[in-house]
Amino acid sequence: MTKAQIKFLQSLGRQKYRKEHNAYLVEGDKNAVEWLDSSQQILGIAATGPWLDAHISLIQRHPGAEIMRAEDFELEKVTSLQHAQEVVIAVKQPAAVPYTGQKEGWYLYLDKIQDPGNMGTIIRIADWFGLSQVICSPDCVEWYNPKVVQASMGSLLRIPLAEMSPEAFLATNTLPLYATALDGIDIRQTAPATGGVIAMGNESKGLSSLLLEAASHRVLIPGKGGAESLNVAVATGIVCATLTLS
Amino acid sequence: MTKAQIKFLQSLGRQKYRKEHNAYLVEGDKNAVEWLDSSQQILGIAATGPWLDAHISLIQRHPGAEIMRAEDFELEKVTSLQHAQEVVIAVKQPAAVPYTGQKEGWYLYLDKIQDPGNMGTIIRIADWFGLSQVICSPDCVEWYNPKVVQASMGSLLRIPLAEMSPEAFLATNTLPLYATALDGIDIRQTAPATGGVIAMGNESKGLSSLLLEAASHRVLIPGKGGAESLNVAVATGIVCATLTLS
Repeated sequence: MTKAQIKFLQSLGRQKYRKEHNAYLVEGDKNAVEWLDSSQQILGIAATGPWLDAHISLIQRHPGAEIMRAEDFELEKVTSLQHAQEVVIAVKQPAAVPYTGQKEGWYLYLDKIQDPGNMGTIIRIADWFGLSQVICSPDCVEWYNPKVVQASMGSLLRIPLAEMSPEAFLATNTLPLYATALDGIDIRQTAPATGGVIAMGNESKGLSSLLLEAASHRVLIPGKGGAESLNVAVATGIVCATLTLS
Repeated sequence: MTKAQIKFLQSLGRQKYRKEHNAYLVEGDKNAVEWLDSSQQILGIAATGPWLDAHISLIQRHPGAEIMRAEDFELEKVTSLQHAQEVVIAVKQPAAVPYTGQKEGWYLYLDKIQDPGNMGTIIRIADWFGLSQVICSPDCVEWYNPKVVQASMGSLLRIPLAEMSPEAFLATNTLPLYATALDGIDIRQTAPATGGVIAMGNESKGLSSLLLEAASHRVLIPGKGGAESLNVAVATGIVCATLTLS
Protein backbone atom coordinates (compact mmCIF):
# COMPACT_ATOMS: atom_id res chain seq x y z
CA MET A 1 0.00 0.00 0.00
CA THR A 2 1.15 3.54 -0.65
CA LYS A 3 1.41 6.05 2.16
CA ALA A 4 -1.51 7.98 0.67
CA GLN A 5 -3.70 4.87 0.67
CA ILE A 6 -2.88 4.11 4.31
CA LYS A 7 -3.53 7.72 5.26
CA PHE A 8 -6.89 7.76 3.46
CA LEU A 9 -8.18 4.60 5.17
CA GLN A 10 -6.86 5.74 8.55
CA SER A 11 -8.66 9.05 8.14
CA LEU A 12 -11.99 7.22 7.77
CA GLY A 13 -11.61 6.08 11.38
CA ARG A 14 -12.54 9.68 12.31
CA GLN A 15 -15.95 11.29 11.88
CA LYS A 16 -14.51 14.53 10.52
CA TYR A 17 -12.89 12.76 7.56
CA ARG A 18 -15.81 10.39 7.00
CA LYS A 19 -17.91 13.51 6.47
CA GLU A 20 -15.26 15.18 4.33
CA HIS A 21 -14.82 12.14 2.06
CA ASN A 22 -18.47 11.05 2.31
CA ALA A 23 -17.19 7.53 2.91
CA TYR A 24 -16.83 4.93 5.68
CA LEU A 25 -14.99 1.74 6.58
CA VAL A 26 -16.28 -1.83 6.60
CA GLU A 27 -13.90 -4.26 8.25
CA GLY A 28 -13.41 -8.01 8.47
CA ASP A 29 -14.20 -10.90 6.17
CA LYS A 30 -17.89 -11.44 6.97
CA ASN A 31 -18.90 -7.80 6.63
CA ALA A 32 -16.68 -7.15 3.60
CA VAL A 33 -18.23 -10.06 1.72
CA GLU A 34 -21.73 -8.86 2.57
CA TRP A 35 -20.96 -5.32 1.39
CA LEU A 36 -19.25 -6.48 -1.82
CA ASP A 37 -22.29 -8.64 -2.49
CA SER A 38 -24.52 -5.54 -2.31
CA SER A 39 -25.05 -2.64 -4.68
CA GLN A 40 -23.13 -0.18 -2.49
CA GLN A 41 -20.47 1.91 -4.19
CA ILE A 42 -17.11 0.49 -3.10
CA LEU A 43 -14.23 2.98 -3.26
CA GLY A 44 -11.35 0.75 -2.22
CA ILE A 45 -10.48 -2.73 -0.98
CA ALA A 46 -7.37 -3.25 1.15
CA ALA A 47 -6.72 -6.91 1.88
CA THR A 48 -4.06 -9.58 2.18
CA GLY A 49 -3.02 -11.30 -1.06
CA PRO A 50 -4.73 -14.59 -0.10
CA TRP A 51 -8.01 -12.77 0.68
CA LEU A 52 -7.96 -10.90 -2.65
CA ASP A 53 -7.18 -14.11 -4.55
CA ALA A 54 -10.01 -15.97 -2.83
CA HIS A 55 -12.59 -13.27 -3.63
CA ILE A 56 -11.75 -12.31 -7.21
CA SER A 57 -15.22 -12.76 -8.69
CA LEU A 58 -16.80 -10.65 -5.94
CA ILE A 59 -14.16 -7.95 -6.37
CA GLN A 60 -14.63 -7.86 -10.15
CA ARG A 61 -18.21 -6.73 -9.63
CA HIS A 62 -16.77 -3.40 -8.46
CA PRO A 63 -14.59 -2.17 -11.32
CA GLY A 64 -14.45 1.31 -9.80
CA ALA A 65 -12.84 0.11 -6.56
CA GLU A 66 -9.15 0.67 -5.93
CA ILE A 67 -7.51 -2.66 -5.04
CA MET A 68 -4.81 -2.45 -2.37
CA ARG A 69 -2.75 -5.59 -1.77
CA ALA A 70 -1.74 -5.16 1.86
CA GLU A 71 0.70 -6.61 4.35
CA ASP A 72 -0.54 -7.50 7.82
CA PHE A 73 1.29 -4.58 9.40
CA GLU A 74 -0.43 -2.21 6.97
CA LEU A 75 -3.88 -3.58 7.78
CA GLU A 76 -3.03 -3.18 11.44
CA LYS A 77 -2.36 0.50 10.77
CA VAL A 78 -5.66 1.16 9.04
CA THR A 79 -8.08 -0.81 11.20
CA SER A 80 -10.29 1.11 13.58
CA LEU A 81 -11.07 -2.09 15.51
CA GLN A 82 -9.15 -3.64 18.35
CA HIS A 83 -7.73 -6.41 16.21
CA ALA A 84 -6.49 -6.09 12.64
CA GLN A 85 -8.68 -7.73 9.99
CA GLU A 86 -7.60 -9.38 6.76
CA VAL A 87 -9.74 -6.98 4.77
CA VAL A 88 -10.84 -3.35 5.12
CA ILE A 89 -13.00 -1.66 2.50
CA ALA A 90 -13.91 1.97 1.94
CA VAL A 91 -17.54 2.55 0.95
CA LYS A 92 -19.33 5.66 -0.28
CA GLN A 93 -22.05 6.86 2.10
CA PRO A 94 -25.46 6.44 0.45
CA ALA A 95 -27.90 9.33 0.61
CA ALA A 96 -30.21 9.31 3.64
CA VAL A 97 -33.80 8.33 2.82
CA PRO A 98 -36.23 11.05 3.94
CA TYR A 99 -39.11 10.08 6.21
CA THR A 100 -42.21 11.39 4.56
CA GLY A 101 -44.87 10.45 7.09
CA GLN A 102 -45.99 7.13 5.66
CA LYS A 103 -49.42 5.78 6.45
CA GLU A 104 -48.47 2.20 7.32
CA GLY A 105 -45.67 -0.04 8.49
CA TRP A 106 -43.45 0.07 11.57
CA TYR A 107 -40.74 2.67 12.18
CA LEU A 108 -38.24 3.49 14.90
CA TYR A 109 -37.46 7.05 16.01
CA LEU A 110 -34.18 7.22 17.97
CA ASP A 111 -33.66 10.22 20.22
CA LYS A 112 -30.01 10.94 21.19
CA ILE A 113 -28.75 7.34 21.14
CA GLN A 114 -25.08 7.81 22.03
CA ASP A 115 -23.46 4.40 22.21
CA PRO A 116 -22.34 3.03 18.82
CA GLY A 117 -22.82 -0.56 19.98
CA ASN A 118 -26.42 0.22 20.91
CA MET A 119 -27.04 1.99 17.58
CA GLY A 120 -25.69 -0.94 15.56
CA THR A 121 -27.63 -3.47 17.64
CA ILE A 122 -30.85 -1.46 17.19
CA ILE A 123 -30.38 -1.32 13.40
CA ARG A 124 -29.97 -5.13 13.52
CA ILE A 125 -33.23 -5.41 15.52
CA ALA A 126 -35.05 -3.20 12.98
CA ASP A 127 -33.83 -5.52 10.23
CA TRP A 128 -34.85 -8.68 12.12
CA PHE A 129 -38.42 -7.46 12.64
CA GLY A 130 -38.67 -6.08 9.11
CA LEU A 131 -39.18 -2.44 10.12
CA SER A 132 -39.57 0.03 7.27
CA GLN A 133 -37.12 2.68 8.44
CA VAL A 134 -35.05 4.03 11.33
CA ILE A 135 -35.21 7.79 11.88
CA CYS A 136 -32.52 9.38 14.06
CA SER A 137 -32.39 12.72 15.83
CA PRO A 138 -29.41 14.80 14.68
CA ASP A 139 -27.59 14.23 17.98
CA CYS A 140 -27.51 10.44 17.68
CA VAL A 141 -24.14 8.73 17.20
CA GLU A 142 -23.16 8.72 13.50
CA TRP A 143 -24.38 5.63 11.54
CA TYR A 144 -21.01 5.20 9.88
CA ASN A 145 -18.98 5.05 13.08
CA PRO A 146 -16.97 1.80 12.67
CA LYS A 147 -18.47 0.35 15.85
CA VAL A 148 -21.99 0.94 14.53
CA VAL A 149 -21.06 -0.78 11.26
CA GLN A 150 -19.60 -3.70 13.22
CA ALA A 151 -22.55 -4.13 15.60
CA SER A 152 -25.15 -3.83 12.83
CA MET A 153 -23.82 -7.06 11.27
CA GLY A 154 -24.82 -6.08 7.73
CA SER A 155 -28.27 -4.75 8.65
CA LEU A 156 -27.01 -1.26 7.82
CA LEU A 157 -27.26 -2.39 4.19
CA ARG A 158 -30.94 -3.21 4.46
CA ILE A 159 -32.53 -0.58 6.72
CA PRO A 160 -33.21 2.87 5.22
CA LEU A 161 -31.97 5.56 7.59
CA ALA A 162 -33.21 9.11 7.97
CA GLU A 163 -32.09 12.04 10.10
CA MET A 164 -34.77 14.36 11.40
CA SER A 165 -35.20 16.64 14.42
CA PRO A 166 -37.97 15.66 16.86
CA GLU A 167 -39.89 18.81 15.80
CA ALA A 168 -39.70 18.05 12.08
CA PHE A 169 -40.53 14.40 12.70
CA LEU A 170 -43.61 15.23 14.78
CA ALA A 171 -44.75 17.72 12.15
CA THR A 172 -44.52 15.03 9.47
CA ASN A 173 -45.66 11.90 11.29
CA THR A 174 -49.25 10.65 10.96
CA LEU A 175 -48.79 7.18 12.51
CA PRO A 176 -49.48 6.28 16.16
CA LEU A 177 -46.42 7.11 18.27
CA TYR A 178 -45.37 4.62 20.98
CA ALA A 179 -43.07 5.96 23.68
CA THR A 180 -41.57 3.98 26.55
CA ALA A 181 -42.24 5.81 29.80
CA LEU A 182 -42.20 4.93 33.49
CA ASP A 183 -45.84 6.02 33.79
CA GLY A 184 -46.86 3.99 30.71
CA ILE A 185 -49.26 1.06 30.56
CA ASP A 186 -48.00 -2.53 30.47
CA ILE A 187 -46.90 -2.96 26.85
CA ARG A 188 -48.65 -6.34 26.68
CA GLN A 189 -51.99 -4.54 27.17
CA THR A 190 -51.55 -2.42 24.03
CA ALA A 191 -54.19 -3.02 21.35
CA PRO A 192 -52.84 -4.80 18.26
CA ALA A 193 -51.91 -2.38 15.45
CA THR A 194 -50.65 -2.72 11.92
CA GLY A 195 -48.20 0.15 12.06
CA GLY A 196 -46.69 2.92 14.10
CA VAL A 197 -43.52 4.63 15.22
CA ILE A 198 -41.65 3.34 18.28
CA ALA A 199 -39.63 6.11 19.93
CA MET A 200 -36.60 5.14 22.02
CA GLY A 201 -34.52 7.62 24.01
CA ASN A 202 -31.06 8.37 25.26
CA GLU A 203 -29.21 5.76 27.36
CA SER A 204 -29.29 7.75 30.58
CA LYS A 205 -31.94 10.42 30.08
CA GLY A 206 -34.59 8.49 28.15
CA LEU A 207 -36.91 10.27 25.72
CA SER A 208 -37.05 14.05 25.57
CA SER A 209 -40.28 15.56 26.92
CA LEU A 210 -41.34 16.79 23.48
CA LEU A 211 -41.62 13.21 22.22
CA LEU A 212 -43.11 11.88 25.46
CA GLU A 213 -45.85 14.49 25.35
CA ALA A 214 -46.61 13.92 21.68
CA ALA A 215 -46.89 10.14 22.12
CA SER A 216 -50.27 8.59 21.42
CA HIS A 217 -49.32 5.54 23.54
CA ARG A 218 -47.07 5.50 26.59
CA VAL A 219 -45.91 1.97 27.25
CA LEU A 220 -43.88 0.25 29.95
CA ILE A 221 -41.95 -3.03 30.00
CA PRO A 222 -42.94 -4.50 33.38
CA GLY A 223 -40.08 -5.45 35.67
CA LYS A 224 -39.98 -7.32 38.95
CA GLY A 225 -36.44 -6.98 40.11
CA GLY A 226 -33.89 -4.46 41.21
CA ALA A 227 -32.49 -2.99 38.01
CA GLU A 228 -33.41 0.66 37.41
CA SER A 229 -33.71 0.19 33.69
CA LEU A 230 -32.95 -2.06 30.76
CA ASN A 231 -30.26 -1.41 28.15
CA VAL A 232 -31.88 0.65 25.36
CA ALA A 233 -31.20 -1.95 22.65
CA VAL A 234 -32.73 -4.70 24.81
CA ALA A 235 -35.77 -2.50 25.49
CA THR A 236 -36.08 -1.78 21.75
CA GLY A 237 -36.02 -5.51 21.04
CA ILE A 238 -38.76 -6.24 23.57
CA VAL A 239 -40.98 -3.38 22.35
CA CYS A 240 -40.52 -4.41 18.69
CA ALA A 241 -41.24 -8.08 19.50
CA THR A 242 -44.39 -7.13 21.43
CA LEU A 243 -45.84 -4.54 19.05
CA THR A 244 -44.71 -5.34 15.53
CA LEU A 245 -45.33 -9.10 15.59
CA SER A 246 -48.89 -8.81 16.80
CA MET B 1 -1.02 6.93 46.00
CA THR B 2 2.00 4.72 46.54
CA LYS B 3 3.54 2.78 43.70
CA ALA B 4 2.36 -0.45 45.29
CA GLN B 5 -1.23 0.82 45.45
CA ILE B 6 -1.18 1.84 41.78
CA LYS B 7 0.35 -1.49 40.82
CA PHE B 8 -2.29 -3.44 42.78
CA LEU B 9 -5.24 -1.65 41.17
CA GLN B 10 -3.68 -1.86 37.73
CA SER B 11 -3.20 -5.59 38.17
CA LEU B 12 -6.95 -6.03 38.74
CA GLY B 13 -7.48 -4.95 35.14
CA ARG B 14 -6.20 -8.41 34.20
CA GLN B 15 -8.01 -11.69 34.77
CA LYS B 16 -4.89 -13.49 36.02
CA TYR B 17 -4.45 -11.06 38.89
CA ARG B 18 -8.16 -10.82 39.64
CA LYS B 19 -8.04 -14.56 40.24
CA GLU B 20 -4.80 -14.36 42.23
CA HIS B 21 -6.10 -11.59 44.50
CA ASN B 22 -9.72 -12.83 44.46
CA ALA B 23 -10.75 -9.23 43.85
CA TYR B 24 -12.09 -6.94 41.10
CA LEU B 25 -12.50 -3.29 40.15
CA VAL B 26 -15.63 -1.14 40.26
CA GLU B 27 -15.19 2.20 38.52
CA GLY B 28 -16.97 5.53 38.33
CA ASP B 29 -19.18 7.47 40.73
CA LYS B 30 -22.55 5.76 40.12
CA ASN B 31 -21.22 2.21 40.45
CA ALA B 32 -18.89 3.01 43.34
CA VAL B 33 -21.76 4.51 45.36
CA GLU B 34 -23.94 1.50 44.66
CA TRP B 35 -21.20 -0.92 45.75
CA LEU B 36 -20.33 1.07 48.89
CA ASP B 37 -24.02 1.08 49.74
CA SER B 38 -24.05 -2.75 49.61
CA SER B 39 -22.68 -5.39 51.96
CA GLN B 40 -19.81 -6.32 49.64
CA GLN B 41 -16.35 -6.45 51.17
CA ILE B 42 -14.48 -3.35 49.94
CA LEU B 43 -10.70 -3.71 49.92
CA GLY B 44 -9.69 -0.24 48.79
CA ILE B 45 -11.06 3.09 47.55
CA ALA B 46 -8.94 5.27 45.26
CA ALA B 47 -10.56 8.64 44.55
CA THR B 48 -9.97 12.35 44.19
CA GLY B 49 -9.96 14.41 47.39
CA PRO B 50 -13.32 16.06 46.57
CA TRP B 51 -14.96 12.66 45.93
CA LEU B 52 -13.67 11.23 49.21
CA ASP B 53 -14.81 14.32 51.13
CA ALA B 54 -18.27 14.16 49.58
CA HIS B 55 -18.77 10.49 50.48
CA ILE B 56 -17.34 10.26 54.01
CA SER B 57 -20.36 8.62 55.63
CA LEU B 58 -20.56 5.95 52.95
CA ILE B 59 -16.81 5.28 53.21
CA GLN B 60 -16.95 5.01 57.00
CA ARG B 61 -19.23 2.00 56.65
CA HIS B 62 -16.20 0.11 55.36
CA PRO B 63 -13.55 0.42 58.08
CA GLY B 64 -11.51 -2.37 56.49
CA ALA B 65 -11.05 -0.50 53.19
CA GLU B 66 -7.76 1.17 52.37
CA ILE B 67 -8.41 4.82 51.46
CA MET B 68 -6.23 6.18 48.64
CA ARG B 69 -6.41 9.92 47.98
CA ALA B 70 -5.51 10.10 44.30
CA GLU B 71 -4.49 12.65 41.72
CA ASP B 72 -6.20 12.60 38.33
CA PHE B 73 -3.09 11.24 36.62
CA GLU B 74 -2.97 8.37 39.09
CA LEU B 75 -6.62 7.47 38.48
CA GLU B 76 -5.89 7.57 34.77
CA LYS B 77 -3.17 4.98 35.36
CA VAL B 78 -5.38 2.56 37.24
CA THR B 79 -8.60 2.72 35.22
CA SER B 80 -9.41 -0.15 32.93
CA LEU B 81 -11.98 1.95 31.09
CA GLN B 82 -11.45 4.29 28.18
CA HIS B 83 -11.82 7.42 30.28
CA ALA B 84 -10.45 7.92 33.78
CA GLN B 85 -13.04 8.04 36.57
CA GLU B 86 -12.96 10.06 39.79
CA VAL B 87 -13.20 6.88 41.82
CA VAL B 88 -12.03 3.28 41.47
CA ILE B 89 -12.67 0.70 44.17
CA ALA B 90 -11.27 -2.78 44.72
CA VAL B 91 -13.84 -5.33 45.88
CA LYS B 92 -13.43 -8.88 47.16
CA GLN B 93 -15.07 -11.48 44.89
CA PRO B 94 -17.99 -13.08 46.71
CA ALA B 95 -18.32 -16.86 46.63
CA ALA B 96 -20.35 -18.24 43.73
CA VAL B 97 -23.81 -19.51 44.73
CA PRO B 98 -24.25 -23.16 43.70
CA TYR B 99 -27.27 -24.07 41.58
CA THR B 100 -28.95 -26.91 43.36
CA GLY B 101 -31.79 -27.73 40.97
CA GLN B 102 -34.56 -25.67 42.50
CA LYS B 103 -38.18 -26.56 41.87
CA GLU B 104 -39.51 -23.11 41.01
CA GLY B 105 -38.60 -19.67 39.73
CA TRP B 106 -36.86 -18.54 36.57
CA TYR B 107 -33.18 -19.08 35.79
CA LEU B 108 -30.79 -18.36 32.94
CA TYR B 109 -28.16 -20.79 31.74
CA LEU B 110 -25.48 -19.07 29.63
CA ASP B 111 -23.43 -21.24 27.30
CA LYS B 112 -20.08 -19.73 26.17
CA ILE B 113 -21.14 -16.07 26.20
CA GLN B 114 -17.93 -14.34 25.14
CA ASP B 115 -18.60 -10.62 24.93
CA PRO B 116 -18.32 -8.80 28.29
CA GLY B 117 -20.85 -6.16 27.20
CA ASN B 118 -23.37 -8.91 26.45
CA MET B 119 -22.68 -10.66 29.75
CA GLY B 120 -23.18 -7.46 31.76
CA THR B 121 -26.33 -6.56 29.82
CA ILE B 122 -27.76 -10.06 30.38
CA ILE B 123 -27.12 -9.85 34.14
CA ARG B 124 -28.99 -6.51 34.07
CA ILE B 125 -31.91 -8.20 32.23
CA ALA B 126 -31.99 -11.02 34.82
CA ASP B 127 -32.21 -8.38 37.54
CA TRP B 128 -34.96 -6.42 35.74
CA PHE B 129 -37.18 -9.49 35.38
CA GLY B 130 -36.42 -10.71 38.89
CA LEU B 131 -34.78 -13.98 37.85
CA SER B 132 -33.54 -16.19 40.68
CA GLN B 133 -30.05 -16.93 39.37
CA VAL B 134 -27.73 -16.88 36.36
CA ILE B 135 -25.69 -20.04 35.76
CA CYS B 136 -22.69 -19.81 33.43
CA SER B 137 -20.74 -22.48 31.59
CA PRO B 138 -17.05 -22.42 32.59
CA ASP B 139 -16.05 -20.96 29.21
CA CYS B 140 -18.16 -17.81 29.56
CA VAL B 141 -16.39 -14.47 29.90
CA GLU B 142 -15.44 -13.81 33.54
CA TRP B 143 -18.11 -11.99 35.61
CA TYR B 144 -15.55 -9.65 37.12
CA ASN B 145 -14.15 -8.41 33.82
CA PRO B 146 -14.37 -4.58 34.19
CA LYS B 147 -16.60 -4.33 31.09
CA VAL B 148 -19.05 -6.84 32.58
CA VAL B 149 -19.12 -4.84 35.82
CA GLN B 150 -19.73 -1.64 33.84
CA ALA B 151 -22.49 -3.05 31.61
CA SER B 152 -24.30 -4.76 34.50
CA MET B 153 -25.02 -1.33 36.06
CA GLY B 154 -25.11 -2.65 39.61
CA SER B 155 -27.17 -5.75 38.83
CA LEU B 156 -24.08 -7.85 39.55
CA LEU B 157 -24.76 -7.02 43.21
CA ARG B 158 -28.24 -8.50 43.13
CA ILE B 159 -28.13 -11.58 40.92
CA PRO B 160 -26.61 -14.76 42.39
CA LEU B 161 -24.15 -16.28 39.92
CA ALA B 162 -23.12 -19.90 39.55
CA GLU B 163 -20.62 -21.66 37.33
CA MET B 164 -21.51 -25.12 36.11
CA SER B 165 -20.67 -27.28 33.10
CA PRO B 166 -23.61 -28.12 30.80
CA GLU B 167 -23.29 -31.78 31.90
CA ALA B 168 -23.40 -30.99 35.62
CA PHE B 169 -26.22 -28.51 35.10
CA LEU B 170 -28.34 -31.01 33.16
CA ALA B 171 -27.70 -33.68 35.80
CA THR B 172 -28.96 -31.30 38.50
CA ASN B 173 -31.78 -29.43 36.80
CA THR B 174 -35.41 -30.50 37.30
CA LEU B 175 -37.12 -27.43 35.78
CA PRO B 176 -38.38 -27.16 32.18
CA LEU B 177 -35.50 -26.09 29.91
CA TYR B 178 -36.22 -23.50 27.19
CA ALA B 179 -33.70 -23.30 24.38
CA THR B 180 -33.74 -20.85 21.47
CA ALA B 181 -33.40 -22.79 18.22
CA LEU B 182 -34.04 -22.10 14.55
CA ASP B 183 -36.40 -25.10 14.41
CA GLY B 184 -38.23 -23.98 17.54
CA ILE B 185 -41.89 -22.99 17.84
CA ASP B 186 -42.95 -19.35 17.95
CA ILE B 187 -42.13 -18.30 21.51
CA ARG B 188 -45.51 -16.56 21.82
CA GLN B 189 -47.21 -19.97 21.45
CA THR B 190 -45.49 -21.38 24.53
CA ALA B 191 -47.85 -22.39 27.34
CA PRO B 192 -47.61 -20.11 30.40
CA ALA B 193 -45.35 -21.52 33.12
CA THR B 194 -44.34 -20.47 36.60
CA GLY B 195 -40.70 -21.36 36.29
CA GLY B 196 -37.96 -22.77 34.15
CA VAL B 197 -34.45 -22.34 32.86
CA ILE B 198 -33.82 -20.26 29.74
CA ALA B 199 -30.64 -21.36 27.95
CA MET B 200 -28.84 -18.84 25.73
CA GLY B 201 -25.82 -19.68 23.62
CA ASN B 202 -22.61 -18.31 22.19
CA GLU B 203 -22.72 -15.13 20.06
CA SER B 204 -21.79 -16.84 16.81
CA LYS B 205 -22.36 -20.56 17.40
CA GLY B 206 -25.54 -20.51 19.48
CA LEU B 207 -26.29 -23.25 21.98
CA SER B 208 -24.20 -26.41 22.08
CA SER B 209 -26.01 -29.52 20.87
CA LEU B 210 -25.99 -31.11 24.33
CA LEU B 211 -28.24 -28.34 25.66
CA LEU B 212 -30.38 -28.16 22.53
CA GLU B 213 -31.09 -31.88 22.71
CA ALA B 214 -31.86 -31.80 26.41
CA ALA B 215 -34.31 -28.89 26.04
CA SER B 216 -37.94 -29.58 26.93
CA HIS B 217 -39.03 -26.57 24.79
CA ARG B 218 -37.37 -25.29 21.66
CA VAL B 219 -38.50 -21.74 21.00
CA LEU B 220 -37.96 -19.21 18.23
CA ILE B 221 -38.29 -15.41 18.14
CA PRO B 222 -40.10 -14.85 14.83
CA GLY B 223 -38.42 -12.44 12.42
CA LYS B 224 -39.58 -10.91 9.16
CA GLY B 225 -36.56 -9.15 7.85
CA GLY B 226 -33.08 -9.75 6.58
CA ALA B 227 -30.93 -10.06 9.70
CA GLU B 228 -29.55 -13.57 10.28
CA SER B 229 -29.90 -13.31 14.02
CA LEU B 230 -30.44 -10.99 16.95
CA ASN B 231 -27.77 -9.92 19.41
CA VAL B 232 -27.76 -12.49 22.24
CA ALA B 233 -28.57 -9.96 24.96
CA VAL B 234 -31.51 -8.63 22.91
CA ALA B 235 -32.75 -12.19 22.34
CA THR B 236 -32.41 -12.91 26.08
CA GLY B 237 -34.50 -9.82 26.84
CA ILE B 238 -37.26 -10.86 24.45
CA VAL B 239 -37.35 -14.45 25.74
CA CYS B 240 -37.41 -13.30 29.38
CA ALA B 241 -40.16 -10.74 28.66
CA THR B 242 -42.25 -13.37 26.88
CA LEU B 243 -41.81 -16.28 29.28
CA THR B 244 -41.21 -14.92 32.76
CA LEU B 245 -43.89 -12.22 32.79
CA SER B 246 -46.68 -14.54 31.75
